[in-house]
Amino acid sequence: MGERSDFRRELGQQLRVDSVRASAAAGSGHPTSSMSAADLIAVLIDGHLREDDHLIFSKGHASPLYYAMLKATGRIDDTELLTFRRLGSRLEGHPTPRIPPTDVATGSLGQGLPIGAGVALAGARLDRLPFRVWCLCGDSEMAEGSMWESIQHAGWEGLDNLVAIIDVNRLGQTRETMLGWDLDGYVRRLTAFGWHAIAIDGHDVDEIDAAYAEAESIKTRPTAIVARTLKGRGVKAVEDQPGRHGKPLDDVDDAIAELGGERDLSVELAEPAGGTRHAFETAPADIPTWELGEEVATRKAYGEALTALGSRRGDVVALDGEVSNSTHSEDFRAAHEDRYFEMFIAEQQLVAAAVGFQVRGWVPYASTFAAFFTRAYDFVRMAAISRADIRLAGSHAGVSIGEDGPSQMALEDLAAFRAIHGSTVLHPSDANQTAKLVEAMADQPGISFLRTLRGKTPVRTPADEPVVIGGSRIAHDGDDVAIIACGITVDEAVRAAESLADEGVRARVLDCYSIKPIDAEAVQAAARECGTVITVEDHWSEGGLGDAVLEALAAAEDRPPVTKLAVRDMPVSGTPEELLREAGIDAEAIAAAARAVSPIRR
Amino acid sequence: MGERSDFRRELGQQLRVDSVRASAAAGSGHPTSSMSAADLIAVLIDGHLREDDHLIFSKGHASPLYYAMLKATGRIDDTELLTFRRLGSRLEGHPTPRIPPTDVATGSLGQGLPIGAGVALAGARLDRLPFRVWCLCGDSEMAEGSMWESIQHAGWEGLDNLVAIIDVNRLGQTRETMLGWDLDGYVRRLTAFGWHAIAIDGHDVDEIDAAYAEAESIKTRPTAIVARTLKGRGVKAVEDQPGRHGKPLDDVDDAIAELGGERDLSVELAEPAGGTRHAFETAPADIPTWELGEEVATRKAYGEALTALGSRRGDVVALDGEVSNSTHSEDFRAAHEDRYFEMFIAEQQLVAAAVGFQVRGWVPYASTFAAFFTRAYDFVRMAAISRADIRLAGSHAGVSIGEDGPSQMALEDLAAFRAIHGSTVLHPSDANQTAKLVEAMADQPGISFLRTLRGKTPVRTPADEPVVIGGSRIAHDGDDVAIIACGITVDEAVRAAESLADEGVRARVLDCYSIKPIDAEAVQAAARECGTVITVEDHWSEGGLGDAVLEALAAAEDRPPVTKLAVRDMPVSGTPEELLREAGIDAEAIAAAARAVSPIRR
Repeated sequence: MGERSDFRRELGQQLRVDSVRASAAAGSGHPTSSMSAADLIAVLIDGHLREDDHLIFSKGHASPLYYAMLKATGRIDDTELLTFRRLGSRLEGHPTPRIPPTDVATGSLGQGLPIGAGVALAGARLDRLPFRVWCLCGDSEMAEGSMWESIQHAGWEGLDNLVAIIDVNRLGQTRETMLGWDLDGYVRRLTAFGWHAIAIDGHDVDEIDAAYAEAESIKTRPTAIVARTLKGRGVKAVEDQPGRHGKPLDDVDDAIAELGGERDLSVELAEPAGGTRHAFETAPADIPTWELGEEVATRKAYGEALTALGSRRGDVVALDGEVSNSTHSEDFRAAHEDRYFEMFIAEQQLVAAAVGFQVRGWVPYASTFAAFFTRAYDFVRMAAISRADIRLAGSHAGVSIGEDGPSQMALEDLAAFRAIHGSTVLHPSDANQTAKLVEAMADQPGISFLRTLRGKTPVRTPADEPVVIGGSRIAHDGDDVAIIACGITVDEAVRAAESLADEGVRARVLDCYSIKPIDAEAVQAAARECGTVITVEDHWSEGGLGDAVLEALAAAEDRPPVTKLAVRDMPVSGTPEELLREAGIDAEAIAAAARAVSPIRR
Repeated sequence: MGERSDFRRELGQQLRVDSVRASAAAGSGHPTSSMSAADLIAVLIDGHLREDDHLIFSKGHASPLYYAMLKATGRIDDTELLTFRRLGSRLEGHPTPRIPPTDVATGSLGQGLPIGAGVALAGARLDRLPFRVWCLCGDSEMAEGSMWESIQHAGWEGLDNLVAIIDVNRLGQTRETMLGWDLDGYVRRLTAFGWHAIAIDGHDVDEIDAAYAEAESIKTRPTAIVARTLKGRGVKAVEDQPGRHGKPLDDVDDAIAELGGERDLSVELAEPAGGTRHAFETAPADIPTWELGEEVATRKAYGEALTALGSRRGDVVALDGEVSNSTHSEDFRAAHEDRYFEMFIAEQQLVAAAVGFQVRGWVPYASTFAAFFTRAYDFVRMAAISRADIRLAGSHAGVSIGEDGPSQMALEDLAAFRAIHGSTVLHPSDANQTAKLVEAMADQPGISFLRTLRGKTPVRTPADEPVVIGGSRIAHDGDDVAIIACGITVDEAVRAAESLADEGVRARVLDCYSIKPIDAEAVQAAARECGTVITVEDHWSEGGLGDAVLEALAAAEDRPPVTKLAVRDMPVSGTPEELLREAGIDAEAIAAAARAVSPIRR
């Protein structure tokens, strides 16, 4: 043990030295936050972390340590280590999947553990494999509510394949954390949430080793290792000093000398835990279709289509934020109980679990009210940086939900999701569109968002008509005025077009069920052929369909005037019909707008 | 006590009956979630809640109970009670400030307690008044991480003026909660976070009374009352039954009879706690100005301007998410320590506390990295429904932050904040603009967002030039091509214009420091006079400056082609200059775009 312990201490020093060197080469970075956790990582990689385990640096700013570890385990060489933070380097300021085997991007605190809980949940219930998930967490990020969502959830699920290593270095960016070095405070909290918690000296390699061994032996509960550490450990000038966060060291050569100089130790990870990944049974199933004119809520079509898709594809899984009878993911649960995950009212954990599932190759569909995905917006933003492929289905779009009032109405979701890198934003107007888009989302890379309606809409899309991401359809033909709509407003627009037809105005209604990418060709054709455009959406006037249409026309040859109909005043409670009318996005308002701009009527 | 207890039991039944009646009249709503908490509210209003206490229904869906309570305390009459959820009624599906004395809108779970913690913090540290804050919480919402942010923070602050009443009715929308009726589980968790916690039978009016009295006597800690209740209590058909969430009762008359029929009890709240609101001392102070050409980071100007404003105005307070040395709110802390609040790395609580502070009439400025406000997007959304006046300052905008990489770069913030109802979105390009906008935000209603830069920019705006919300300035004059920019890209655009001038192309650079409202007149004039428009922003191409410009031109008489320069590929680490170049938003890219569209060059 003595020799092994000595090696680990030396390895810890190497990780510190390399953290200092990488940050010095970059001229920025977080060496002191790396130095506190160096012994924890040294012992982890020398004897505990297995080749098929997952390791997530929830404290992503300890990237120098992460890259130093990649060097020690032979993933990168010293030359690459020193490219840290340079343009073109795979070693970004905070880890991203650009450098394997990084699963996800971190750097927004409080996300690594929730995602790790998702990976662990996949391991236990989907893959059914013995790999373990280790998360290195900072003590500052324990203030994030998302950490407690995952602690709560992992405790409830009894995820004994999840280990949180909490680096309690006491010092945040500007001051001491709320708990400082009160290890018992952390232990009490974690224990109260059903975790096994072990307080240790995070610089004693033998204590660390024993704690990891204990974690590996614990059944039915996740384990947290609460490690007392010193920020900047090993270099007196910065050790446990305030004001040293996020800065390279001043005297790098002295610091390296104080740490015992450069070393070139290398480590082999432990043998993989192995096992065979579970595969769920599949069965032929048709994606459902509906007859023209049937009245069906698109949220209901979502549930039915996802259920059929889940029969066909064993990799499809569903998650919900305890509103499955509203989103209709309950249909999937009934048919595929083993692949349904109840995330309760914890939207950050909902999205994080989806990200964790796709790390393991599953195809997650997460659903809640579209308004409540705003709760997880930072997780969606980071999921894009993680290059994650996830599918989010948000129900109860806009004022058309009616009586529940504005807290339940998604009115900013299109804007928020359009502004996610590489995202796909879909808002079908009927059941047939919905089912086809649910199917298409399964193979769509990046973040896909499907917005569904609470109320029923008539099926207008023939069952055999193609519906594709980036597509659109003409719901009513004409060339006097173009009315571009999506979701509930398609129905209103068609009714407006019908009443305009009686007056001799031929309105074209373009159903842009794909808002990003938008069918720019169809939008431009409508603009060109109709000469005037009205957009209408059950969403705030900023960032949604109207803006997508304006973008499609921004540099087009024909740029007719565009009138944007959208929700502009804070809605209240009322019936769907009343609220569509009050917002000025119902058939009557659309017809009035068309009359105002139509050349025939002028 | 016997008579008082009888009265309270009767009052509880009245609240149930009125909850059932209101929901029946509406044809929707959450009577069963109201019935579980009726006794808790009956005892609260009869003897404990004082006229100047605050009561927040964190479980906003118990609105029938809330309105029944308003009737029992004489705030509304029975006729108004039965307008629940109808168009025009003040009694919306979930409470909003449209019905006094409601402080804030609830209905997105997990927000009432964090806001309540903010109100309590204001009471203890700003107002310095003895009023108490009571929050009725659901057990389902205990899964939200935001609840634990506030539990953590209130425990750390020792807010003995805060009482959480947790209605443990066991049943969520679709199933049992994670903890069910494990009251000890809640007590252990709350106690571990430094709260005093009392488990009671939530239908025993004497136990409830004793618990409230105990809460009132506890010092230095917040109290949680963990009350075991039955959902739908009092009506056998729905009592403790699954599948009864969010629905009116089937047999209303029978239910009312079972509850003992209608009653007309009324209650007077207890005498106000009284006291005199604390006022902070003020002193004359000039909002700082800088010389033309000085290089100053706008985040630094934010800190200095806010500090001066804080000297002048005793109602201005600052909060930060533990990055005050990055956002420069540390300047305010140094000068006005009593009015600075460290919210640690808990952005939901950060925004919630700001909302709570403005409930008490304070003028909060909350700061963190702009990217991390995405963590609190649902809180910002709800703050708009609360008609809250809050000011948010987000630093570290866009790729121009450089080496830290995409996790720290705000690239969707303009889109997200533009899509908040009634919001103001500002992105100054220099220090003088920043200071004037910080001052203007103090009196701006609604949600104001100021986006600041990490790096220094040269002061281009003369100190005596007016800078107003809704304004813009011409940073370089010309009429061959309009370049519309904001923040860091103004500097790039001016340099592009200077190089274009050498080639004989006169570019107008319009600095749209106010993105919402945008200076539509100046944008339209630029379009009209220049004939072609380029927008350039350090933000994704969706929802930001470019879309705001397109909207301003959508129905204008002159609608020249608009070329949008924005960030389109996922950024990596690099120097600010490299990343601006890579994103195609630097001076060279702007000049190239101008050459491509400029009529002179064609």
